[in-house]
Amino acid sequence: MPNPTAAMLVIGDEILSGRTRDANMHHLAGELAKAGIDLKEVRFVGDDPDVIVGAVNALRRAFDHLFTSGGIGPTHDDITADCIAAAFGLPIGVRDDARAILQAHYDREGIELNEARLRMARIPEGAALIDNPVSAAPGFTLGNVHVMAGVPTIFAAMAAGLLPTLRGGAPVVSRSVRVELAEGDIAGPLGVLAQSNPDLSFGSYPFQRDGKYGANIVIRGQDGAAVEAAAEELADRLGLTA
Amino acid sequence: MPNPTAAMLVIGDEILSGRTRDANMHHLAGELAKAGIDLKEVRFVGDDPDVIVGAVNALRRAFDHLFTSGGIGPTHDDITADCIAAAFGLPIGVRDDARAILQAHYDREGIELNEARLRMARIPEGAALIDNPVSAAPGFTLGNVHVMAGVPTIFAAMAAGLLPTLRGGAPVVSRSVRVELAEGDIAGPLGVLAQSNPDLSFGSYPFQRDGKYGANIVIRGQDGAAVEAAAEELADRLGLTA
Repeated sequence: MPNPTAAMLVIGDEILSGRTRDANMHHLAGELAKAGIDLKEVRFVGDDPDVIVGAVNALRRAFDHLFTSGGIGPTHDDITADCIAAAFGLPIGVRDDARAILQAHYDREGIELNEARLRMARIPEGAALIDNPVSAAPGFTLGNVHVMAGVPTIFAAMAAGLLPTLRGGAPVVSRSVRVELAEGDIAGPLGVLAQSNPDLSFGSYPFQRDGKYGANIVIRGQDGAAVEAAAEELADRLGLTA
Repeated sequence: MPNPTAAMLVIGDEILSGRTRDANMHHLAGELAKAGIDLKEVRFVGDDPDVIVGAVNALRRAFDHLFTSGGIGPTHDDITADCIAAAFGLPIGVRDDARAILQAHYDREGIELNEARLRMARIPEGAALIDNPVSAAPGFTLGNVHVMAGVPTIFAAMAAGLLPTLRGGAPVVSRSVRVELAEGDIAGPLGVLAQSNPDLSFGSYPFQRDGKYGANIVIRGQDGAAVEAAAEELADRLGLTA
C-alpha cells in the first residue's frame, strides 16, 4: 500500500512580506517523514479569504491530508477557521466544548475571556478539536484538514498530539553519501543508478567548501536493503569506499 | 498604480522530505519587499514534471512575476529547465551562448565540460540568460518566469543581478509596535483601527517571554505618514507611549 500523501498550507502575510521566517514547514516535513506520510506540496498564502478557501479546496481534494498553520488567534487578521468552514460550506460559531476549554484556562490565569478571545472558540460544525497544551485555544480537524496554530511552539505541540492518531505508512529510509567530486562528475554514474532503481529516489545536493566542490547524494526509499545496496553500488562506481 | 505581484516556486524533493531547510523564500521575500514587488504566494513542489509544469502555468498566469528556485544543476533530478520549456510549449536545447559561458568557466578551472555539465546549457528558446557570478551556469528569464538556482549563495547572487532590472513599485513601509499585553486584550482596539484604515495592513504576532504574553503589532502600507499616524493612534488606544 502506498504511503498516505499530504500537503501543508501556511497562512499569513508576515512570511510573504519577509518579516518572519517560517519554522513550521521544516518541522512538519521532518515529522511526516518519520510517520511515513509523504509531504507532496506546501503553499504559503496571505490573509485573503478567497485565496485561502481556494487553496484549502484544491489541496484537500488532491491529497490524503492537509495541514494548515497560522491564523487561529484572537485578532481581526485570524480568519483561518472561517475560511475552512467556507471551504466545506459548513456553519461556524462559538462551540461549547471549545469555550469551556478557554474558560478554564483563562480562569486559571485570572484573565477575562473577552469577545476577542472567544473568537478562538469558533469551530466549524462537525470538527474534532486538536489539543493545545501550550495556550489552550484548540486547533481542529475537519474531514482531512488539520488546522493548527502558527506560533512554532504551539504548532509543534499540536502536531505531536495529532500525528500518532493518523494512519502512517512505511517510514522512508535514507542514506547519504558524501562525495568530494564536482556534481558534473557524479551526474553520469548517478543517472545510470537512478534509472536502474525506479523505486528509490536519488538526490544530489552540491556544496562548495574551502574552494572544493562536492555533493551529498541522498538515496531514499521504503526498502532499507535496496537503499543500502544502491549506496554501495554508487560508492563502487565513483571509486569510493562506502 | 498598484505594485507588481509575484509568486515563487521552490522545486525539489529535499525540502519536502525534511532533509533541507529552505533559505531562498525568506531571502527573496525580503528583497521583493524592498523592491516594491508584492509576493503573494509561494509553492514548494517535488521533482515531478507534471506537478512542476502545472504549478508554473498556474502561477505565471496569476501573477506579474514568477521566480523559481532549484533544479537547474547537472544531475538527472535537475529537470526545471525542461519543465519551463514544456509549460510554455517551446523547444529546448543546448544554446551556444550558455555553452560558451560554461566552456570559459571550466577552461579557467581546468575541468572538463562533460555531457552532464553541458545539461546546464540547455535553455528554452527565446529565454534571456541570468548571470551566475558564483559558478557560471546561468539562470534564465522566459516571459515573466525567472529561473534561478537552489543553492542559496547562487540564488542570492542571481536575484541581486535580476531584481534591479524589473519594474518595482512603492516599497512598503512598516512600523512595529511592541505591546506587553496579551493578544486577546489588543484585539478589540486593533480591529477598530484596521477597519478605519483600509489602505494599511495590521498584523499581530504574539510572543510569550518569561511567562508574560505580548505581541508585535506590525502596520504596513505605502504611505509612510499614514503608517506613522496609525502607530500613534494604536499606542494611544492601548495607553502606551509610541
